[in-house]
Amino acid sequence: MNRTPRRRLFLFMDIEGLMKRAIKLALRAKGKTSPNPLVGAVIYKRGKIVGEGYHKAAGKPHAEIEALKNAGKRAKGGILFVNLEPCIHYGKTPPCAPEIVKAGIKEVYIGMIDPNPKVNGKGIRYLLNHGVKVHTGILEEKAREINRFYAFAVKNKIPYVILKIASTLDGFIGGFSRRYITCEESRRLVHRWRNQVDGVLVGIGTVLKDNPELNVRLVKPVKQPLKIVLDTNLRIPHSSKLFSTEGDVIVYSRRSGKLPSGEVVTVGTKKGMLKIEDVLKNLYSRGVNSLLVEGGRNVFSTFIKEGFFQEIKIFYAPILQGNGIKMIENVSMVVQVERSRKIGDDILVEGRNVHRNN
Amino acid sequence: MNRTPRRRLFLFMDIEGLMKRAIKLALRAKGKTSPNPLVGAVIYKRGKIVGEGYHKAAGKPHAEIEALKNAGKRAKGGILFVNLEPCIHYGKTPPCAPEIVKAGIKEVYIGMIDPNPKVNGKGIRYLLNHGVKVHTGILEEKAREINRFYAFAVKNKIPYVILKIASTLDGFIGGFSRRYITCEESRRLVHRWRNQVDGVLVGIGTVLKDNPELNVRLVKPVKQPLKIVLDTNLRIPHSSKLFSTEGDVIVYSRRSGKLPSGEVVTVGTKKGMLKIEDVLKNLYSRGVNSLLVEGGRNVFSTFIKEGFFQEIKIFYAPILQGNGIKMIENVSMVVQVERSRKIGDDILVEGRNVHRNN
Repeated sequence: MNRTPRRRLFLFMDIEGLMKRAIKLALRAKGKTSPNPLVGAVIYKRGKIVGEGYHKAAGKPHAEIEALKNAGKRAKGGILFVNLEPCIHYGKTPPCAPEIVKAGIKEVYIGMIDPNPKVNGKGIRYLLNHGVKVHTGILEEKAREINRFYAFAVKNKIPYVILKIASTLDGFIGGFSRRYITCEESRRLVHRWRNQVDGVLVGIGTVLKDNPELNVRLVKPVKQPLKIVLDTNLRIPHSSKLFSTEGDVIVYSRRSGKLPSGEVVTVGTKKGMLKIEDVLKNLYSRGVNSLLVEGGRNVFSTFIKEGFFQEIKIFYAPILQGNGIKMIENVSMVVQVERSRKIGDDILVEGRNVHRNN
Repeated sequence: MNRTPRRRLFLFMDIEGLMKRAIKLALRAKGKTSPNPLVGAVIYKRGKIVGEGYHKAAGKPHAEIEALKNAGKRAKGGILFVNLEPCIHYGKTPPCAPEIVKAGIKEVYIGMIDPNPKVNGKGIRYLLNHGVKVHTGILEEKAREINRFYAFAVKNKIPYVILKIASTLDGFIGGFSRRYITCEESRRLVHRWRNQVDGVLVGIGTVLKDNPELNVRLVKPVKQPLKIVLDTNLRIPHSSKLFSTEGDVIVYSRRSGKLPSGEVVTVGTKKGMLKIEDVLKNLYSRGVNSLLVEGGRNVFSTFIKEGFFQEIKIFYAPILQGNGIKMIENVSMVVQVERSRKIGDDILVEGRNVHRNN
């Protein structure tokens, strides 16, 4: 039982362990790569990791290129572990698959196939055609989870939407005397989510009532999300805190106009409401792959009615209110509740839209 | 490392381990002892358990007597572990403390002091006065938890109340097309609770709308709880399933009348509602130490408004409803949420009334 770690690794190549390492590297850039995916890469050869890297930000080199550079000549004959299929198209940087072949990598383990129509199996085919062995589906569930925003957006051309609702135990989201009903731990968690998504969206009612900042401030900002307001009649006050705090602003309205900062984008209406699908398509075209929808009732009701959400996260503050502003109105839906946990004094319930998840 | 269990126990008397055993024995009679508490007793001597017993049902011998009988002559010089202070008053059976002294027990470890005014330290004083060493507060939290119904009721002369609410994620408890909104696992858990309490209470609205049986049937019945209806104007149909299924029925009303089975108890009203406190006092006088309140909105609102509950258990079915019958109305309250967990497809959130818990 005196084998050194090196010898043990040589005797048993720990495929999942190496893929875990790639995923861990990928997650270092959480919140920074959008609209690109999170990707990490590890090159393994004769019992050792000889190179590794990850995609640091959109426009920066891909993970595979970073790992190949890190490995140098040692890459030749090596085995590459990467959580997403290597690309084959020219984006802001040249494609990875030819570089992998050129460096002499003999085998590639892949977490998930890239759902981007420009790749979607073409990267794998290129590798196979050039004599590289390819294995897919390693820790696929985890690989899908970390890139669920990217995968959904690139396939559907609209952002992945998370509804975040702060409610009393009896379902009221407003009509309280206090500013916040949830505890500080819960609000800090929301700021962590803001750090991970590309945009945060609210309705004009929420802006008028709460005058929120919608930025990341209770945790260290990785970046500031785009702040998005649905404002059919362009009623947003120019004194709104949104305009004077960090983060760009987009206001969607049926009217055009000027703002202290940011942009008004006009979209059509249906029964007096802005067309959500047009808003989402426009956001996607601007590189928004993920959206945290934070209120209020009309916005939640519309997103739920039209099925434009993938996840729902409800904080229940330990309050029975009896009366107030309801969570949603004139819409009903069965969701899939996945888990719940205590966050400070509150309970967080997390669920999914089973009808539209990928 | 070849010590036998016996030798190990002798070297280190495991105080908590022995009290755990007493509690485990006590729990064998869960749901069967009311209005008496759950009590288990273990007699330990020279590294061994020489006798044990538990209180099997009201009217049956107390745990200490069972354990003494089980130990026989070996009790002399032994150490007694019991989760509740031994009694000193004559009830349906003679008091335990003198029997403990008579048997020659030299030391007693007690989980919690009996809050019953007839005991409440007097049992301990008797033991001390007769030369028995006494230690209290062993696994006290657990001891209090298993007898929380008894402890609350004996102190306050009203039953310990648990509100059980089945809701949508957005706080509606009615107005659905289906019979049940929660899943079978949740309903089975409710039947387990019915097995543990002395009574189950609903309002007349729930009887008229749902025609519930309120008995234990989804799990093996330990006993059937008393079925209690608050029915101000005595509108209960004689065809209600309550009357034709297992378990006794009490209807509280401002009117007197006859029922197919069971009893009508008249109580006064306040602003058109039955006086809850009078109902609770009457139930306590009938030996009801614990009550599961199962609906509907008016009943929940009244119990919450008047503070007559100790625990609240809300099942959230994975449904967003938008409209329907609210959980409560015209009342608000901050509770303490303790935990949440997934039960089948639902989430169960459990909390306490911090203002009135003992």
